[in-house]
Amino acid sequence: MSKTGKSAVVLLSGGQDSTTCLYWAKKHFEKVYAIGFRYGQRHEFEVELAQKIAEQASVPYVIHEIQTLKKLSRNSLTNSDIAMDAEKPADSLPNTFVPGRNMIFLNYAAVYAYSLGVHNIVTGVSQADYSGYPDCRNTFIKSVNASLNLAMDYEFEIHTPLMWCDKEAVWQLADELGVFDIVRTQTLTCYNGVPADGCGHCPACTLRAKGLEKYLRKKQ
Amino acid sequence: MSKTGKSAVVLLSGGQDSTTCLYWAKKHFEKVYAIGFRYGQRHEFEVELAQKIAEQASVPYVIHEIQTLKKLSRNSLTNSDIAMDAEKPADSLPNTFVPGRNMIFLNYAAVYAYSLGVHNIVTGVSQADYSGYPDCRNTFIKSVNASLNLAMDYEFEIHTPLMWCDKEAVWQLADELGVFDIVRTQTLTCYNGVPADGCGHCPACTLRAKGLEKYLRKKQ
Repeated sequence: MSKTGKSAVVLLSGGQDSTTCLYWAKKHFEKVYAIGFRYGQRHEFEVELAQKIAEQASVPYVIHEIQTLKKLSRNSLTNSDIAMDAEKPADSLPNTFVPGRNMIFLNYAAVYAYSLGVHNIVTGVSQADYSGYPDCRNTFIKSVNASLNLAMDYEFEIHTPLMWCDKEAVWQLADELGVFDIVRTQTLTCYNGVPADGCGHCPACTLRAKGLEKYLRKKQ
Repeated sequence: MSKTGKSAVVLLSGGQDSTTCLYWAKKHFEKVYAIGFRYGQRHEFEVELAQKIAEQASVPYVIHEIQTLKKLSRNSLTNSDIAMDAEKPADSLPNTFVPGRNMIFLNYAAVYAYSLGVHNIVTGVSQADYSGYPDCRNTFIKSVNASLNLAMDYEFEIHTPLMWCDKEAVWQLADELGVFDIVRTQTLTCYNGVPADGCGHCPACTLRAKGLEKYLRKKQ
């Protein structure tokens, strides 16, 4: 058990990664809280799914509105008039990047944890399949952890169980945690808003499906 | 001129410090933008004052709602049912501390700057008269600057012209910038919501008045 106590706040969006993290947290901590955000994402429906997932896991879930993110920047994830990049452009970030998003999410999660007297924060970011998003990198997480601790003069510990996992490894972890079916059937990863196996052709679905296929083949 | 360009985003709350910073930024940068927040502070009136100050300075001002801060934590600045600490308690932070506030403000200012293609951010935090708030310290600012740069893969430069200024020095700087009267008569620092010289007895007024007195004595 970590020096920083027996409870944790998990960032839960209702996707494959954060749902797997929710169950990882339930295994490693005695008391788990979850936090999610409405920030003008295309499929706010994912928040409802997350709500159900949290209920099923008996984890209290709070949802916060942060429309400021949408107002402050233009990207295809929060502006439906922009077509989403199917692949990462060679010379820039994909236009699905919402600048500052993960830092703001971690910031609010930390304020919530502080108010609860909780020190551990769990987030499903991964550098392995990170599509070039800078705020999924390990170095960023280390840096923002230090900034949060300095900001509030408090000992936060950010846990990133998926940091070095590709999607195949995330499926394997869900299976080891006994929640393979929950993750497969109840989560939303698809950019087109189709839960479970999704639309099958957007970049998120392709990544998820390839990982699943690899994991199932290995498991046979 | 800084390597990071000729424009800047200033965090403007309508108080003495941020108003002085606004004019400092106008002196050092060709194009200045200001950003402010409604976050459930006791005296939202300060945002209206900030609006007037920005107009007078011909600086575009955007205001964002972030009620999440109020919902996530209990403190006397955003909860009027809690009496404000008159002085810093010996063994804890004053209850006027809003956990995570400056980091969230800087985060949104950075997202705004990113969307404008601006690299410089100016904020009026000060370690000299910081009342024990951890998110006013220089080390925090350096850390959050690094985190923001990593989060967005972008070169931000956070400027803190008041970092080592006590209130006397802030009055002197306003005078040197030619805005002593504007700062004295149009800003709101008072915890009880009285503009200009304020209520005269809250901690913020006492600090401001002492600095003013010392500066005026020195100037004679």
